[in-house]
Amino acid sequence: MAHKSDIQIAREAKKRPIQEIGEKLGISSDDLLPYGHDKAKVSQSFINSVQDRPDGKLILVTAINPTPAGEGKTTTTVGLGDGLNRIGKKAAVCIREASLGPNFGMKGGAAGGGYAQIVPMEEMNLHFTGDFHAITSAHSLLSAMIDNHIYWGNELEIDTRRVVWRRVVDMNDRALRQITTSLGGVANGFPREAGFDITVASEVMAILCLAKNLTDLQERLGNMIVAYRRDKSPVFARDIKADGAMTVLLKDAMQPNLVQTLENNPAFVHGGPFANIAHGCNSVIATTTALKLADYVVTEAGFGADLGAEKFMNIKCRKAGLAPSAVVVVATVRAMKMNGGVAKADLGAENVDAVKSGCANLGRHIENVKSFGVPVVVAINHFITDTDAEVQAVKDYVASQGAEAVLSRHWELGSEGSADLATKVVEVIEKGEAAFAPIYPDEMSLADKINTIATKIYRADEAVMDGKIRAQLKEWEDQGYGNLPVCMAKTQYSFTTDPERRGAPTGFDIPVREVRLSAGAGFVVAICGEIMTMPGLPRVPSAESIRLNADGDVEGLF
Amino acid sequence: MAHKSDIQIAREAKKRPIQEIGEKLGISSDDLLPYGHDKAKVSQSFINSVQDRPDGKLILVTAINPTPAGEGKTTTTVGLGDGLNRIGKKAAVCIREASLGPNFGMKGGAAGGGYAQIVPMEEMNLHFTGDFHAITSAHSLLSAMIDNHIYWGNELEIDTRRVVWRRVVDMNDRALRQITTSLGGVANGFPREAGFDITVASEVMAILCLAKNLTDLQERLGNMIVAYRRDKSPVFARDIKADGAMTVLLKDAMQPNLVQTLENNPAFVHGGPFANIAHGCNSVIATTTALKLADYVVTEAGFGADLGAEKFMNIKCRKAGLAPSAVVVVATVRAMKMNGGVAKADLGAENVDAVKSGCANLGRHIENVKSFGVPVVVAINHFITDTDAEVQAVKDYVASQGAEAVLSRHWELGSEGSADLATKVVEVIEKGEAAFAPIYPDEMSLADKINTIATKIYRADEAVMDGKIRAQLKEWEDQGYGNLPVCMAKTQYSFTTDPERRGAPTGFDIPVREVRLSAGAGFVVAICGEIMTMPGLPRVPSAESIRLNADGDVEGLF
Repeated sequence: MAHKSDIQIAREAKKRPIQEIGEKLGISSDDLLPYGHDKAKVSQSFINSVQDRPDGKLILVTAINPTPAGEGKTTTTVGLGDGLNRIGKKAAVCIREASLGPNFGMKGGAAGGGYAQIVPMEEMNLHFTGDFHAITSAHSLLSAMIDNHIYWGNELEIDTRRVVWRRVVDMNDRALRQITTSLGGVANGFPREAGFDITVASEVMAILCLAKNLTDLQERLGNMIVAYRRDKSPVFARDIKADGAMTVLLKDAMQPNLVQTLENNPAFVHGGPFANIAHGCNSVIATTTALKLADYVVTEAGFGADLGAEKFMNIKCRKAGLAPSAVVVVATVRAMKMNGGVAKADLGAENVDAVKSGCANLGRHIENVKSFGVPVVVAINHFITDTDAEVQAVKDYVASQGAEAVLSRHWELGSEGSADLATKVVEVIEKGEAAFAPIYPDEMSLADKINTIATKIYRADEAVMDGKIRAQLKEWEDQGYGNLPVCMAKTQYSFTTDPERRGAPTGFDIPVREVRLSAGAGFVVAICGEIMTMPGLPRVPSAESIRLNADGDVEGLF
Repeated sequence: MAHKSDIQIAREAKKRPIQEIGEKLGISSDDLLPYGHDKAKVSQSFINSVQDRPDGKLILVTAINPTPAGEGKTTTTVGLGDGLNRIGKKAAVCIREASLGPNFGMKGGAAGGGYAQIVPMEEMNLHFTGDFHAITSAHSLLSAMIDNHIYWGNELEIDTRRVVWRRVVDMNDRALRQITTSLGGVANGFPREAGFDITVASEVMAILCLAKNLTDLQERLGNMIVAYRRDKSPVFARDIKADGAMTVLLKDAMQPNLVQTLENNPAFVHGGPFANIAHGCNSVIATTTALKLADYVVTEAGFGADLGAEKFMNIKCRKAGLAPSAVVVVATVRAMKMNGGVAKADLGAENVDAVKSGCANLGRHIENVKSFGVPVVVAINHFITDTDAEVQAVKDYVASQGAEAVLSRHWELGSEGSADLATKVVEVIEKGEAAFAPIYPDEMSLADKINTIATKIYRADEAVMDGKIRAQLKEWEDQGYGNLPVCMAKTQYSFTTDPERRGAPTGFDIPVREVRLSAGAGFVVAICGEIMTMPGLPRVPSAESIRLNADGDVEGLF
């Protein structure tokens, strides 16, 4: 069976003018700020005008631990959105924006795949509506203002060794990871060590994605800690007086972006925080706006359910007052086989035993999600090599866990292939059994929160924190940050900190190497492993073959 | 007389949807890529479709050497465009985009002033349509690819001490002027000295503004010299294989931006290269497109006529095959008085003698412009303190120089105040006396080109170049760059290199301190004084008071 590539399918899309997509959600063309003919922002004034409407039902799409076989979480998110529309429901999809820089290292990615995609694909991998550029600008302004403050006399008594605010650029540039700035003499300031992260790692990105509105945005920006004094007291972005101008730079970026699926259904693509040092979900404002405009909103979170769903529940939903009505856990027969010990090269051959054995990973995610009080549907994202017996093995296993699994063929067939999944999800939601609650209370100590996630979600024996880390957490509690949720930074490939340990391992600890306070975003990051905040380019970056062809189409980006 | 501020007037503008503005030029809404409701890009396919049409008449607005009194060059450009439309001509305006970073140091600027402005003013001072962000991205990609090439084995044998490609950011950040990169060990590359300029100083900006189309853009990007080997042979961006991907990043930015004047006439605002280390004109593609769509196109160039008009003629017009039909030199009575030795505090009092004496500066600019074979009209940009006798003194002087001066009151009255100027300009153009030619041929040596500008335009005794500079110029000639025009980098406040010497000085030399090759943009820069390519922020940056007010309007930016 010869299939078209994602980009071929995307280029053949029969896109409708974005105003028509807006109309489906009751947004007039005056309230849509177009960016070309197929992208638009929803105006802040319109968003303000719908705040009193009731909310639709929120559905989170998450997945097992990712494997090299691919699970298709975004594909399923898009497919489910189209499936819901196909069965007559008013549904919208909410996903994250892509980062520009990495596309010039490895090839860029589709938003979804096959016949379950969001378009325009090229633009979403390039500048899109400029949101990430706005974040880079706002971040860079604060960077410049900090060094400028020091230059003009350092009235705030910033310890130049303790400036924790790094710079950002939306490009993979390892040469900027660690630098020395302000060289060259008096006119250029006081030399100090510094460095750049990639834009998606900026706390500004996390804040944009968690802020409820522009007032909340400015408040959070002001709360960011940018440096410490010699006495270790914090200096805030507010002290630098950068929060107002940063908000001005971000006012357009705060408006959610509306695009469409291949089937011309509405999709919000907005925000894209790192899924490790941040919470990895699309913006709160996109999700809450979509919930006012659609009866069903399908969204996703980064990585597998142990990281993505956990943060979605404990950080995003808690902070934004959201309550998901159902969770779809995406699994594939191939990924089950890999979790069952099959090598990637051997995935083509039927192996029901390996599928059964790999299902333990899926089972733990189902149990975890249920522990938040939300019902689960498993979507088996169909691959053409899957055999009936293998699919049945997954279904049987899921049934034994008190949930239901539905085979979904959206990649191949679009909404025709996901209508069954959509029907099942609606059925589960209409039972009304969802009773969402985060798995730890605000009042729990930071160390206990970390330990709760490690033991209840990962099933570790304990989270190991040395005295220095415990003292730091205690200090933040004393400063009033004890009520914040924690944001785990850990490999996405395993419940453990060892990416090679697939399945449902037991008998391990989670060592916490470092903790960081994102006082503006509003969480404490617990780093359990190596976290790269500025990627490099590979030996032969994809940029070398990216170009415009004679028709003006982009070649080499995909 | 109580006048409203520029921002007050701009906010009261009765803007028409950008599609209506496009219609005035025969651009259908399909061919306009909207950015919100009041900004749009003109599609590349539409631009391609009008290439066989005849060109309208091109009018350059330039000025005397700027003084602290203000001349109002952009204001007059906009006023003349509106005036031409008022007298029944189909006219468009072409000006440059504003740089983001400096707005957070000093307050941002209007495009024009009073009742001769281009809107939307806030957006033009913030992200606008993202062109500068695209330039920053393309520039940053090349930066990352150079260090990545070195990291992975340096096959091109780049001498890391001779990387001439600096990084850029669109922010005033003095701490980044001089830095050391790739610190921190093997994984981060080879430590080297580096630095950041502000985005408008990027050669990518100059190229975007000089490229005729996307093919030409990619060719020029590939031609950029990024480093030298130990044997001093150049390494090009093409060798790094960055030119294709940079072009992809710039494809939207290459499409000119359409906005409107307060009187709803079309204005193209596109590109913004530095007026010293680059040529300081809006993009060639905006100007050539406007000439296909309008009968009269009014544009401007940076600084006074000695720098701006000279580069417009010798670089932009030469390279793009443009031939201006008339030049408007803007002068004010106040500036004439300052040139005549009056202090700024005393400008309010009538002083006809000082006006007469200061006119020498204006006279030299008139003569210079005429030396390019283009007829001159002087626009006296009216200030309410001007007396009839002072205005008459300027008119008499200009008449004695074989040109005509027209009093223009567009700032106060919009097109009603500039209709006389428009009528005069049309009259001069219809005489058909323009016979444009650059003042030096391509074949002249680089040193002689520099000397020609210094002696013929500035009226210096000679351009002084030491042996090292002459040897460098000779080397570039040997490498095939001898046919390039030169781009002078000199203070804009005087014909000399001393900003304090107003009027029409004689008996001075122009010392050339340094020369640089912009092989992609296609000019040799002759630096005659201090050139700052990365500004800093002041002690109290305007950013500290920029914020959104309760109505969502931007406060403190203007």
